Amino acid sequence: MTKETTKTRILTEGAQIVHRKGFSNTGIQEILQAAGVPKGSFYFYFKSKEEFGLALIDFYFGMFAQKMEVLRSSELTPLKRLREFFHSFLSFFEQRCFTVGCPIGTLTQEMGSLGEAFQPRLKKAFERMRAGIGTCLEEAKAAGELDESVDPYEMADFVVNSWEGALLRMKAEKSPDPLLLFDRVVFDQVLKR
Amino acid sequence: MTKETTKTRILTEGAQIVHRKGFSNTGIQEILQAAGVPKGSFYFYFKSKEEFGLALIDFYFGMFAQKMEVLRSSELTPLKRLREFFHSFLSFFEQRCFTVGCPIGTLTQEMGSLGEAFQPRLKKAFERMRAGIGTCLEEAKAAGELDESVDPYEMADFVVNSWEGALLRMKAEKSPDPLLLFDRVVFDQVLKR
Repeated sequence: MTKETTKTRILTEGAQIVHRKGFSNTGIQEILQAAGVPKGSFYFYFKSKEEFGLALIDFYFGMFAQKMEVLRSSELTPLKRLREFFHSFLSFFEQRCFTVGCPIGTLTQEMGSLGEAFQPRLKKAFERMRAGIGTCLEEAKAAGELDESVDPYEMADFVVNSWEGALLRMKAEKSPDPLLLFDRVVFDQVLKR
Repeated sequence: MTKETTKTRILTEGAQIVHRKGFSNTGIQEILQAAGVPKGSFYFYFKSKEEFGLALIDFYFGMFAQKMEVLRSSELTPLKRLREFFHSFLSFFEQRCFTVGCPIGTLTQEMGSLGEAFQPRLKKAFERMRAGIGTCLEEAKAAGELDESVDPYEMADFVVNSWEGALLRMKAEKSPDPLLLFDRVVFDQVLKR
């Protein structure tokens, strides 16, 4: 394996374990074992567990950013693209029996026991979510799908935050209902002319 | 100290530490030390760390339930009472520099590394939040503050979930802005006639 492949493999396997168990609860050996990488080679790729954790935030956001590509598709109206975007997560969570939520949200809840470097990085990840969704809402406004009085980026923040809360509740309920409720209230009541 | 006082003291001190650091990251010795209780006496009060964790959920909900009393005050209209209720949390979080969010939400994010007994108990805690807020929204509807088409309990779920998400984002931002945005969107746009 090349150096880059090994690093990616550690991140890919680590991302899954941390998503399930949390960052503090995950041991480095456990990740290396899952990745099939020799014990002790972790520090060849990451200076510390913290550096690995910060790289994980980018890794998670990268997956989210890939999903956000649907927001730029031109076949649907902006609001329909956004609705489709959130809808596209349903099967992912269903396959995992609704036991894992947003990995960035989970790291944020855990922040009290993580190093100080995490907070600005998590903040930035949320701001990038906000930016992608805000651009789509700006287009929705230009297309006349949203009221003139709506601030697209402020509304994007509200949508991101409500989505995070819906994912949290989904875990407590072990059910997709909070996501379906998010869909109904946000798209039928909040985001309209 | 009586048995009950000691138990309450373990819960009170434990609640603060777990709120800050998470449940998995908190050691029993650490809690006993903070509570000024002799080492090793933990198991006199709780069968296991898990039993303590489950008792913590009730303890946290008890604090929340006390706050919910404002929802039954009759001086304000139902929606104003609800707005006041959420507003009343601001100073609590500000005093803690926005580094801790909802303790029940934090435990929910951590659920993947907790025993199976936690999920139904966390689910129930959310349902009790929903019930208190739903009753208030039912009264708002009866008082003509909400549209006839609104399902008060479904809307209560949306409000609870969005609030949880706002608290999560507050931690990432280290700022009250997500709570203030929640207030504006929920009370000026979502909950109205």
